[in-house]
Amino acid sequence: AHIVTLPGDGVGPEVTAAAVAALKTVAARYEHVFTFDEQLIGGAAIDATGESLPAASLAACQSADAVLLGAVGGPKWSDPNASVRPEQGLLALRAALGVYANLRPLQVHPALANLSPLKNEKLKNVDVLFVRELTGGAYFGAKTRSADAATDECKYTVAEVERVVRRAFELARGRRRHLTSVDKANVLETSRLWRSTVQRIAADYPDVKVEHQLVDSMAMLLLTQPSRYDVVVTENLFGDILTDEAAALAGSLGLLPSASMGDGKAGLYEPIHGSAPDIAGQGVANPVGAILSAALLLRHSLGLEAEAIAVEAAVDRVLRHGPHSRDIGGTAGTEAVRDAVLAAIE
Amino acid sequence: AHIVTLPGDGVGPEVTAAAVAALKTVAARYEHVFTFDEQLIGGAAIDATGESLPAASLAACQSADAVLLGAVGGPKWSDPNASVRPEQGLLALRAALGVYANLRPLQVHPALANLSPLKNEKLKNVDVLFVRELTGGAYFGAKTRSADAATDECKYTVAEVERVVRRAFELARGRRRHLTSVDKANVLETSRLWRSTVQRIAADYPDVKVEHQLVDSMAMLLLTQPSRYDVVVTENLFGDILTDEAAALAGSLGLLPSASMGDGKAGLYEPIHGSAPDIAGQGVANPVGAILSAALLLRHSLGLEAEAIAVEAAVDRVLRHGPHSRDIGGTAGTEAVRDAVLAAIE
Ligand SMILES: CC(C)[C@H](C(=O)O)[C@@H](O)C(=O)O
Ligand SMILES: CC(C)[C@H](C(=O)O)[C@@H](O)C(=O)O
Repeated sequence: AHIVTLPGDGVGPEVTAAAVAALKTVAARYEHVFTFDEQLIGGAAIDATGESLPAASLAACQSADAVLLGAVGGPKWSDPNASVRPEQGLLALRAALGVYANLRPLQVHPALANLSPLKNEKLKNVDVLFVRELTGGAYFGAKTRSADAATDECKYTVAEVERVVRRAFELARGRRRHLTSVDKANVLETSRLWRSTVQRIAADYPDVKVEHQLVDSMAMLLLTQPSRYDVVVTENLFGDILTDEAAALAGSLGLLPSASMGDGKAGLYEPIHGSAPDIAGQGVANPVGAILSAALLLRHSLGLEAEAIAVEAAVDRVLRHGPHSRDIGGTAGTEAVRDAVLAAIE
Repeated sequence: AHIVTLPGDGVGPEVTAAAVAALKTVAARYEHVFTFDEQLIGGAAIDATGESLPAASLAACQSADAVLLGAVGGPKWSDPNASVRPEQGLLALRAALGVYANLRPLQVHPALANLSPLKNEKLKNVDVLFVRELTGGAYFGAKTRSADAATDECKYTVAEVERVVRRAFELARGRRRHLTSVDKANVLETSRLWRSTVQRIAADYPDVKVEHQLVDSMAMLLLTQPSRYDVVVTENLFGDILTDEAAALAGSLGLLPSASMGDGKAGLYEPIHGSAPDIAGQGVANPVGAILSAALLLRHSLGLEAEAIAVEAAVDRVLRHGPHSRDIGGTAGTEAVRDAVLAAIE
């Protein structure tokens, strides 16, 4: 299998290196041949080429079996009036790969529940799979800017909603058969299109219980009743906000992986944390989110379930017994955590 | 002073009646003359007149000194394909009154910290004032709908951003002099306009410390570091989501008030909870959010600071010693809580 890596900015290179090390350990242990090709994206690409997603990077990703990304962005490239921004590269990549379904699983590791801002009793049985639409909405709509005004258009077609919602229903079938669709149908036209599409598709999945929530209520319910939710599907911007909110429940953003997939070949895997410029280059970033993203890559793009489980079990062991990185109350650096995970891969 | 009441739907009439009773008690105790005029809005207005904001209601509000609203909406009027919806009436009212700044104070009452999903140590010193832009953005932009697609336009002018941001800076000056502006400037053009406007205006308030956060990060930071924030200003939709999330911290939505104001005459006051159709008509809704909204009305529209404090102190006493309504772990009904508050107004 051929894997393109896009380390990107900030802590991206550090955590991506750890994830690649995990994939290499899996390859050796299970006798697979994985080839790796490192490419530029984000601020690092802007500095080197002037573009946030150089054509060579995109071409490499399009012919890969899977893409493993670190993080993009940072204060160096954050002028709101800049004409080239790191995030554009990531958005262009998501669009070009057609990875319309962004899966963000949330579980709270029992050994880390004390790190969560939420009371422990709220965290029991929390096991949510967010399915965020990733290639539509206000992220990709027409934008205008003049001296005295700006606009962003949020657009969804029925086809765009339908494909991600069907994916969410299928995923719910493999879990607890409960799907929560989140929108703002009392205000937005795109949300009313979203809701009526979910209602229509629900007829094809009579075995899945469907619930609709408004995004403002959902922001509250994620805190008051997090264990009530199984699969949660929503549009791009609401998914961005709600998944970061939910991530806080896990105790650290550094722990959480994501997988983005479409109907095409290459899936895109990235930890949900950002480039964390404040700790970049210090060797202290938590590599767990990136390593678990590599596990999702094994599962979803390479079909290697046993290998994915081996990585997840290794992470589980390290979260239980340490070493722990700073964000989860320990003192271990990125490499110490990485080495402990590698040693635990069976 | 002349006050228009818009009880609306669900529990709206019950809690509005309690808030009016509090205002009448204040009038008697402090020798003011308040006149009240009840008008239709929302689903109740649709049922009676076919319109969610009848012209008579709007005219009454426009000539009032202040407007006290209950809640609008409910399953009866929630078909995503309906042509008239209760929420339209509320949005039309906000626009017509020009109440562009929606103030949502968040404090966690010490007697109720145990009800919060957040750990108690996180709740210490939480005292946030959200300033949500209320008459712009995707709520009021152009919308389209066809059989196979829908769009919502989010639009902001510099003038719209400037007036609400200046209001937020002024409010920060009267508090801890810390302003957090929330946007999604790494993706949205309207957010970049927002951010550069905040940056420009900040020069006029050198005594206020300004911080910018992306909305996804902020959704997380509100949980991990809620006591760090003083005044938080953001656009309409982000404010809708973040204030409901923050409200969960207080233990019950039923406790929280809001005040909406512009440059014109009448301010609009409403509890932040919705119509709660599941408990409507049972006499069990918590009237505290509505009563505290009446206190904000006294302060901001009538300039009666001592009277506002008297109402807030009365609520404080009832939250400390009971009776408590069901949402905060008690058994008292709406009227019992109301009567306890009235008796405590000094
Ligand atoms: C970096 C940014 C463009 C991105 C997004 O908003 O999608 C990030 O927040 C994420 O959630 O992956
Ligand atoms: C009822 C609804 C239109 C409203 C909004 O979204 O503004 C409500 O959620 C609020 O926050 O006041």
